[in-house]
Amino acid sequence: MSDTGIAEIERRLGRIEDERAIERMIASYGPLVDAGAAEATGELWADEGGYDVEGWSMRSRADVVAMVRSDAHQGLITRGCCHFLGPAVATVDGDSAVAVCESILVRKRDDGFTVARAGANHFRLQRIDRRWQIVARTTRALDGQAEARELLSAGIPGAAR
Amino acid sequence: MSDTGIAEIERRLGRIEDERAIERMIASYGPLVDAGAAEATGELWADEGGYDVEGWSMRSRADVVAMVRSDAHQGLITRGCCHFLGPAVATVDGDSAVAVCESILVRKRDDGFTVARAGANHFRLQRIDRRWQIVARTTRALDGQAEARELLSAGIPGAAR
Amino acid sequence: MSDTGIAEIERRLGRIEDERAIERMIASYGPLVDAGAAEATGELWADEGGYDVEGWSMRSRADVVAMVRSDAHQGLITRGCCHFLGPAVATVDGDSAVAVCESILVRKRDDGFTVARAGANHFRLQRIDRRWQIVARTTRALDGQAEARELLSAGIPGAAR
Repeated sequence: MSDTGIAEIERRLGRIEDERAIERMIASYGPLVDAGAAEATGELWADEGGYDVEGWSMRSRADVVAMVRSDAHQGLITRGCCHFLGPAVATVDGDSAVAVCESILVRKRDDGFTVARAGANHFRLQRIDRRWQIVARTTRALDGQAEARELLSAGIPGAAR
Repeated sequence: MSDTGIAEIERRLGRIEDERAIERMIASYGPLVDAGAAEATGELWADEGGYDVEGWSMRSRADVVAMVRSDAHQGLITRGCCHFLGPAVATVDGDSAVAVCESILVRKRDDGFTVARAGANHFRLQRIDRRWQIVARTTRALDGQAEARELLSAGIPGAAR
Repeated sequence: MSDTGIAEIERRLGRIEDERAIERMIASYGPLVDAGAAEATGELWADEGGYDVEGWSMRSRADVVAMVRSDAHQGLITRGCCHFLGPAVATVDGDSAVAVCESILVRKRDDGFTVARAGANHFRLQRIDRRWQIVARTTRALDGQAEARELLSAGIPGAAR
């Protein structure tokens, strides 16, 4: 086989590896944040990466680490919670990518568990220092607001916002 | 390496690409339908594809588009909902495939969110015009009925129904 | 291209296939156990594999099969339930692997469905007879206990426990 054929195989393989690396990062978020693993959660973000979730606007990896360490988050996990994210759909374009998924936040209550929130999540990622990092995550509750729907409809075809 | 070796690599790669394309379609369904993206949701189905869900039997892509546009569905998304599908298990055989996943429907309520339904989802797909399309989706509530269990036990080994 | 280049492609492809085989097994667990497919659920485990879940310690494939056939489990599925597992993160090292995911257990109630439990799941797997098999699964409720958090923080970087 010609080297052209091999190059095409490597391109297809690289695309799968890129998408899978992003899917894995997003699938790691819930376990890490529910474990209270502040540094490891922060590592998913770029140094200057942002996380905009209702009532909280983080503007760096350090802000994400601080969120995990905050009394608010620590209280959540010691009372019992599960940040449950569905399978992400990632669209890669060179060293940039967009991904989207839905999520629910489940919390322990006296008599069981309850769904405290359902959310739409839109991620912009960049390949920096040879690994994918989140540069912007935007999360909105699926409570009827138009912005949550816009995150989903932009994200599936891989559009930034 | 011989061309036989390369052909085997291409076969393995193609299988992963096929399974991933189907997993991605199914992971896109929730975000698209919760966004109210009627055309894009419909594009997941074949022209003559069906969607049989309790109380609603759609028999074409146009029927799926009409469902997303219906007052019932629009009311659901403007009040707040999340069609949350788990990771799909896809089994490909040439240009045909079967996939299965579980799902929950989460709805906004005055004081939070509630799980309105848990479901079993069985998909039959065909490669048509070089892309995978749903030819039949069957969804039943996991409310104790035997049919829901049959969808799951048929789907995991890749059996049609 | 040199055979070295081909060998590297085969290594990358094999890694994806291994991780995907494990992800697929874990994505199959919920559908199989909710279908009551006792033998097929048991096949996910090694002969001597264990499943340690609060209040229940299984020590072999036969124990897992017996759990699915038990009155307790059969009662659960005939009243309606969904063992809903999120996307797994798998880390492979030769013929050993670790995987982790979060999960919720949704149960039918008179007036709808309820989240009965949210859980952390840590899996150790081995490649035995050329297929991946679970040698140890540990599940703990995300109810605030430290052990559940430890399962998650160990599992994401691929550490055994």
